[in-house]
Amino acid sequence: MSAVDAKKLSMPVGEAMFSQRSVRRLKSDPVPIDLIHLILEAAVKAPNGGNRQPGRFLVVTDRARIEEFGKIYHEAWWAKRKEEKGWTKKSDIPADDKSYTSAAIFADEIGEVPAIVFAFTVAGGGANSILPACQNLMLAAHALGLGSVPTTLHPTVMDRFRDLFDVPKDAAFHFCIPLGYPRVELKPSVRRLTAETCFLDRWDGKVPWA
Amino acid sequence: MSAVDAKKLSMPVGEAMFSQRSVRRLKSDPVPIDLIHLILEAAVKAPNGGNRQPGRFLVVTDRARIEEFGKIYHEAWWAKRKEEKGWTKKSDIPADDKSYTSAAIFADEIGEVPAIVFAFTVAGGGANSILPACQNLMLAAHALGLGSVPTTLHPTVMDRFRDLFDVPKDAAFHFCIPLGYPRVELKPSVRRLTAETCFLDRWDGKVPWA
Repeated sequence: MSAVDAKKLSMPVGEAMFSQRSVRRLKSDPVPIDLIHLILEAAVKAPNGGNRQPGRFLVVTDRARIEEFGKIYHEAWWAKRKEEKGWTKKSDIPADDKSYTSAAIFADEIGEVPAIVFAFTVAGGGANSILPACQNLMLAAHALGLGSVPTTLHPTVMDRFRDLFDVPKDAAFHFCIPLGYPRVELKPSVRRLTAETCFLDRWDGKVPWA
Repeated sequence: MSAVDAKKLSMPVGEAMFSQRSVRRLKSDPVPIDLIHLILEAAVKAPNGGNRQPGRFLVVTDRARIEEFGKIYHEAWWAKRKEEKGWTKKSDIPADDKSYTSAAIFADEIGEVPAIVFAFTVAGGGANSILPACQNLMLAAHALGLGSVPTTLHPTVMDRFRDLFDVPKDAAFHFCIPLGYPRVELKPSVRRLTAETCFLDRWDGKVPWA
């Protein structure tokens, strides 16, 4: 039963795609559960392999569990930075690296967000069958004025993460997507030219708009 | 430089998501390159890890190359069926299995589609940084009246596939997305109830709309 009103997602799809941003500065104000329901219904409409539908979404709005998860996320974020970059504290991050600086602040604050959606697959399903749905979810959230950002975890915390939310061993984790109303104004995203990242007819073949 | 007109993507995002279908019955009529350009610009706006942008799209519209690729795809499709199911010919597919029956016909016909977009990542980027963009691409295509379906390949053909399109060894392949105008009417997709595939606060926790 899908008692949701898809008409609430009235933003033109082009406007939604061209204005979507990853948002890490989120208000702690609650997100109405009917909006979460709507974006989940939109999410599951995305294609998945052979319509076997191995995707599962765990929505967490319980403040105490989010706070507990925030500690796990903080540890995971720094474990990943140590592994990739050798960084162990904020002062190790180059001052001009806005992306990591913002992500480090978010690792401190994630325990205060009003909602998190975790994306999984079961029964051997893979990323192909859940990540398109995650993009629908984030795009629909954006069209409703909600910010989101796709994040991941680190092996060092996975057992505690599974324990906290009773996640079975055979459920493969894909994305942790915090949701909330942005407390910043969204600026357009910055991307490389498609003339550099897209090819025609063979690798490195020039596209006509290059 | 993005000289595209995002306003052409005027379909409400909810309508686009709730009416999207995987389409395997495609006309061979050409797809205007400016529409392909527009959906690629929309695609790259999707989030990617740390904005490192490892995604690459190879668009193929050359008829001879698509025909050549069609043979490779056909072989890959049957190699995968043999491996997964032991099937080697159409009569092995259960008559009531519409999904595989339709996919088998598509494996015969893919060489006649007017355009294919192949999605890759370079520099160690993974599925997380390209599959959200693929969903933007397919959703934008749908909003423009174009059908698409996300498909994959099989290891047995990968060397020949790379040779055909000069794809470097370090580019990871993710999706093969044929594009064209549908030659069938799109019916709504069928999905399990979100009350069964989504949980609240812990695995198996009932959502309020259950």
